[in-house]
Amino acid sequence: MSTLERTLKTIGPLDDAAMAAARTRQAHLTKPPGSLGRLEELSVQVAGITGQARPRIAQKAVIICAADHGVAAQGVSAYPQEVTAQMVANFLQGGAAINVLARHTGARVVVVDVGVLSDLVAHPNLVIRKVAHGTADIAEGPAMSRAQAIQAIETGIEVVEEETARGLDLVAAGDMGIGNTTPSSAIVAAICNHPVAEVTGAGTGIDEQQRAHKVDIIKKALLTNRPDSSDSLDVLAKVGGFEIGAIAGIILGAAAHRIPAAIDGFISTAGALLAVGLAPLVRDYIIATHTSVEAGHKIMLDHLGLSACLNVDFRLGEGTGAVLVLGFVEAACKILDEMATFESAGVSNGR
Amino acid sequence: MSTLERTLKTIGPLDDAAMAAARTRQAHLTKPPGSLGRLEELSVQVAGITGQARPRIAQKAVIICAADHGVAAQGVSAYPQEVTAQMVANFLQGGAAINVLARHTGARVVVVDVGVLSDLVAHPNLVIRKVAHGTADIAEGPAMSRAQAIQAIETGIEVVEEETARGLDLVAAGDMGIGNTTPSSAIVAAICNHPVAEVTGAGTGIDEQQRAHKVDIIKKALLTNRPDSSDSLDVLAKVGGFEIGAIAGIILGAAAHRIPAAIDGFISTAGALLAVGLAPLVRDYIIATHTSVEAGHKIMLDHLGLSACLNVDFRLGEGTGAVLVLGFVEAACKILDEMATFESAGVSNGR
Repeated sequence: MSTLERTLKTIGPLDDAAMAAARTRQAHLTKPPGSLGRLEELSVQVAGITGQARPRIAQKAVIICAADHGVAAQGVSAYPQEVTAQMVANFLQGGAAINVLARHTGARVVVVDVGVLSDLVAHPNLVIRKVAHGTADIAEGPAMSRAQAIQAIETGIEVVEEETARGLDLVAAGDMGIGNTTPSSAIVAAICNHPVAEVTGAGTGIDEQQRAHKVDIIKKALLTNRPDSSDSLDVLAKVGGFEIGAIAGIILGAAAHRIPAAIDGFISTAGALLAVGLAPLVRDYIIATHTSVEAGHKIMLDHLGLSACLNVDFRLGEGTGAVLVLGFVEAACKILDEMATFESAGVSNGR
Repeated sequence: MSTLERTLKTIGPLDDAAMAAARTRQAHLTKPPGSLGRLEELSVQVAGITGQARPRIAQKAVIICAADHGVAAQGVSAYPQEVTAQMVANFLQGGAAINVLARHTGARVVVVDVGVLSDLVAHPNLVIRKVAHGTADIAEGPAMSRAQAIQAIETGIEVVEEETARGLDLVAAGDMGIGNTTPSSAIVAAICNHPVAEVTGAGTGIDEQQRAHKVDIIKKALLTNRPDSSDSLDVLAKVGGFEIGAIAGIILGAAAHRIPAAIDGFISTAGALLAVGLAPLVRDYIIATHTSVEAGHKIMLDHLGLSACLNVDFRLGEGTGAVLVLGFVEAACKILDEMATFESAGVSNGR
């Protein structure tokens, strides 16, 4: 059995008993029932994922998947393609936004080269697992072969399994890849069956004329490739990207190991769409974090039935929103575990 | 000159030079300009407040102001009045939600008794500065005298000054007081000139019939007392509460010492309305955190021109939302201070 098949078979439903126990405890804590809203819901979800009535979060990681995109040649991004590799170097030196926020949250940063165009220099925090030196241009044909699509997803699964072996209670998935809002828009248009113009935004900062060109390129990619929206592997192979496949793999691998996975913005949520297409139960293992400025992100979250808890107007990627939410999830678990009950604190319960 | 007069005179505008320097640095950091949305705005605001181009946050505190309300006798809350003192004891024992979240965020918890009904036992983290043993019933007459309103506000100013002397870079204001959504609704109805029914919610969890009764009580309080909406001291004295006045004082005192003040939910924002009424410039020193489930909270935030960054459905108070946002503000300052620039990291700038 392949790594992907084994992983898909392993993913089961949330643990109802642990969730019921968490809900009962929440009702006895010294606060009006439900008054901590989303934090209470998160604590119950993590109980269901981990199977523990009072889950504790010790080790957190953000895994940034980096790759390049052939479609960048069509002029769909505000930045040149070499920035992908330059930003990977920045991640490894600790100077990027994700490094600052990961240090703040107490999460380790792992960078995976799933398909950066240039060859990267080895580094202890860099996992080099290139599927290819960038995808092919989706405006001209498929991004990758079906075998490469599987390899990209299995890379994500393998990396999350390696991190699990090091100790992992909570994971965030991030992305780096100049041009990657273009395949992400193509994925949401295909899977959510939405007009391209409505799910295509300004990415890292193109103007309105460039955005119109980007819409044309994505329409061409969908017409040229005709992805089968019911088959995540076909969508990934035809209009996806290596890092998007790896993010889908991280989410699947985390769910198989009963670890909550926080998704980030537009690209990371495109990976979640693919993961849920492969294993619908995986939806319950995903924690949505913020609603990106990027058009189409809310459409994806609605399609997945997920809602975000941050209202911060991010459009950076790297896992920046996701890593901030890791701290929230940790706080939610501490509320469940550490708060006094009405009985233990001698507080009158109004009900 | 009184403490209040001195404080109001001290509050000045934000430091434009520090804000300009922060904006310039943000534009050079290795991310698309503006891509960290609210975190970037927060960093610029804190620069303007502190006068430092790269502000650093070392010491954080949440100050919980506790008091009782005569109007609780009218049956406006789901909990009995003794819960105020019981919850103060819970805060001091470390078992409440605010304690868990403050530990998570690295903020110290200070509790101020501005007017709890019963006499409290001394504790190192409890500041006993009772204005009275609870307010009078606002349905029957004024909550307090004008002198007591000033005393409540000055208590908040003095406590924040004592905390500043211990070291304070960022402060959150929280509340505890059974029945205190009732005076808060009265304050927003008076100051924002909104119908009582639209600004009156379920508080800690009353049903629809009890809510209708609460609306009647608030209407009666406003008719009986006729507060002058242009005079914060009159509004506080007639339909307010001691902890609401103290929270206004914390915000004013923080602004006078150029320290950012995070407000919490409905009660804390009622305090902000009073503070801004006394010193309009203080608005720029306030950081809004979440939008409470409580009806009327968004009306207050809109009136103040503030918007929240959390979407978490809280309705607890204690400063729980505010303390979570302290971590955000700290992260915002770290982004500004610690990130690499395009130049230092050797990353190509697309522009």
